[in-house]
Amino acid sequence: MKADSYQTLERRIRRKTSRVGVVGVGFVGSTLVKLVSEAGFPTVAIDIDSEKIRTIRQEFPTITASTDFHYLETCDIVCICVPTPLNDVRKPDLSYYTSALTSVAGHLHRGQLVITESSVAPGTNRSLGLPILSGTGLLPEQDFYFGFSPERIDPGNSRFAIRDVPKVVSGLTEKSKHLVQVFYSSLFRTVIPVSTLETAELCKMYENVFRFINICFVNEMAAFAQASHVDIWELIDAASTKPYGFLPHYPGPGVGGDCIPVLTYHLLDNARSKGVSLRMVESAVQVNTAQPQVVVRNIMDLIGSNAASNGQNHHRVLLVGITYKPDIPDIRESAALTILELLKEQNITVDYHDPYVPAANGYRSVRLTDAVLADSDLVVITTPHTTLPYQRIVSQAPMVFDTSNVLSDNLGPRVHRLY
Amino acid sequence: MKADSYQTLERRIRRKTSRVGVVGVGFVGSTLVKLVSEAGFPTVAIDIDSEKIRTIRQEFPTITASTDFHYLETCDIVCICVPTPLNDVRKPDLSYYTSALTSVAGHLHRGQLVITESSVAPGTNRSLGLPILSGTGLLPEQDFYFGFSPERIDPGNSRFAIRDVPKVVSGLTEKSKHLVQVFYSSLFRTVIPVSTLETAELCKMYENVFRFINICFVNEMAAFAQASHVDIWELIDAASTKPYGFLPHYPGPGVGGDCIPVLTYHLLDNARSKGVSLRMVESAVQVNTAQPQVVVRNIMDLIGSNAASNGQNHHRVLLVGITYKPDIPDIRESAALTILELLKEQNITVDYHDPYVPAANGYRSVRLTDAVLADSDLVVITTPHTTLPYQRIVSQAPMVFDTSNVLSDNLGPRVHRLY
Repeated sequence: MKADSYQTLERRIRRKTSRVGVVGVGFVGSTLVKLVSEAGFPTVAIDIDSEKIRTIRQEFPTITASTDFHYLETCDIVCICVPTPLNDVRKPDLSYYTSALTSVAGHLHRGQLVITESSVAPGTNRSLGLPILSGTGLLPEQDFYFGFSPERIDPGNSRFAIRDVPKVVSGLTEKSKHLVQVFYSSLFRTVIPVSTLETAELCKMYENVFRFINICFVNEMAAFAQASHVDIWELIDAASTKPYGFLPHYPGPGVGGDCIPVLTYHLLDNARSKGVSLRMVESAVQVNTAQPQVVVRNIMDLIGSNAASNGQNHHRVLLVGITYKPDIPDIRESAALTILELLKEQNITVDYHDPYVPAANGYRSVRLTDAVLADSDLVVITTPHTTLPYQRIVSQAPMVFDTSNVLSDNLGPRVHRLY
Repeated sequence: MKADSYQTLERRIRRKTSRVGVVGVGFVGSTLVKLVSEAGFPTVAIDIDSEKIRTIRQEFPTITASTDFHYLETCDIVCICVPTPLNDVRKPDLSYYTSALTSVAGHLHRGQLVITESSVAPGTNRSLGLPILSGTGLLPEQDFYFGFSPERIDPGNSRFAIRDVPKVVSGLTEKSKHLVQVFYSSLFRTVIPVSTLETAELCKMYENVFRFINICFVNEMAAFAQASHVDIWELIDAASTKPYGFLPHYPGPGVGGDCIPVLTYHLLDNARSKGVSLRMVESAVQVNTAQPQVVVRNIMDLIGSNAASNGQNHHRVLLVGITYKPDIPDIRESAALTILELLKEQNITVDYHDPYVPAANGYRSVRLTDAVLADSDLVVITTPHTTLPYQRIVSQAPMVFDTSNVLSDNLGPRVHRLY
């Protein structure tokens, strides 16, 4: 009977008749819903946020979308794509993860495959996730199957289609891993099986912390280049001509987003619990934490030196771009938000404009009129969205501060650069 | 007259009739001698080390090679390729650099182009090198020309021919830069002109410290992976399947060689003089300094646990490979040497075998006989030369410790890995 249910499940996955439930339909989950439904699987989308469910219904009118976890009872596969953010004291908040698994456990049944995609530290799925499912009395690898496959989505990256980015997969044992592999093979061009859940967990973390380390390092180098009267942007271009052993990263106001800095804190928290000291990662965090302060110090210098022309003591700064990276609507862990708060503490009147974010932190995005530009003592390009009217910004604003070298073609006496 | 001498020099370079003197014919200089003479330039090799000159004469019987700097009087171009190592207290030793420039200045003449290739911190050529030449009374950019072009040679890298690696060039002004560019264009497929001497100086430093940072980071991650029961080598392979934003580096006993760690210290020294704090680079140095100690701690644990089978208190360890990286004869800043000294401090009897290094630090390379292998309590693969008889090592040695995962195909109960 048991072997039968395993083979039945495998056959149903290969035939794409297995019903797939996606729990958590934010950016990652809705991307998965799209892949799964386009591949031809009967698809169910579940989220506790009715707003997200409404969006899914509009975008995918033919699939089942609900805030009701009962729909998971009909599913052969459940994919969990909930966030694992940081709490107020920068510690991993695993409450969405445990709560989603608890809800899934409430509808767990024989022959079901549960796969988590949420980014977590190595050991989390085995020691925290699995016991929630096993607590039902159902036996892993016998009654149900359990795997982990980290999402590798790069928001705003149009160079690679989602299905062309190899997908790392793992399972509690070879049995589960095999099912996870067969399932993702129908969604992705290449699937990379690794030996343990922990390897897959750390893989995602390692890739992200690699980026964190390297972006913080280039910010550190940018300060040194500046002190050496070297243009960091020219330097990066020159170094990039080396055909091996170098990968360009670019300076800016600080690393943000829901992945790279967040997973860095997950790693540090987990390393501490294992008694491992990660001094380079700790140093990188210090560099990144200081980076918005570096930007604000530059801003204060610029408006201070321009105070005479303004003829008043109170200054008005306009931040252009509030998201953590260009061309997406995501403000999580955005350095621009930190800069906004730091400027407020300096009694600066701050406004922001962002075509992707109508409101944030109690502010509303202002329209980028000529009057708004002219009335600002300083316009700061905090996030270099590609669609912004840079020429008009440079021509109308009294002074512009460019944190990301997006104005390299529009430099003039009123345009200043972070580096 | 002056414009004439500039144009005459440019024409002579284009026609490859200009005589080129290379000062300092170690690894970098002799590689340049080869390129220059093969391109058809009349070539002169100069070194204060008569042994190096003898080698050059054997390898290139048709060119002029001498310890006498007077030969530079006949040269239109002088390339300085002397080392810039660290002294005993890990500070940059620029004495070869200043001494070479002083000798060159003694024979400087109108219409001569002097190019340095030695790795130095940004500002060194302008503030230290140039005044030595100007001290002759000859005027830069008028009587003589001055440029800097960092060497980018990767010893042992057979994937790229020297001339296929783009060459970064710079000059004191556009005039000098143009001549440097014309000259290297006849030696290299691609030449990358940058705006200042400092940009070119920092470019080399940045590329090297990028590697230093990333190798130290992977060593830090390897310790965390080990604590998480994750195989770092499998992890790196899995992460490397990401088609963007990742570049694999590999753990080992520590970064060595005459470039990567040396330039890191040059950078730190220079940053301190400019009041710039580089906390990530400082942390990386701490990780790298500790790495041989990590290896030695592992060795002591292994021979301690094997003490019973040995039946004596005194231990014998054989280090296989003493160079800083595989397949080259260079022991400068090699982690293996540090490991050797640390083991000696622990009263371990240490021998080493290295097919590329007959003698080092008062030791002579032992032959890798079956008896030598069998008599060692532990054989440590410190440098994974490709030509070593790994199968025989594993079969004859009582216990093997692999610092670089070169024995992944030969694992057995007597083979232990650093990670």
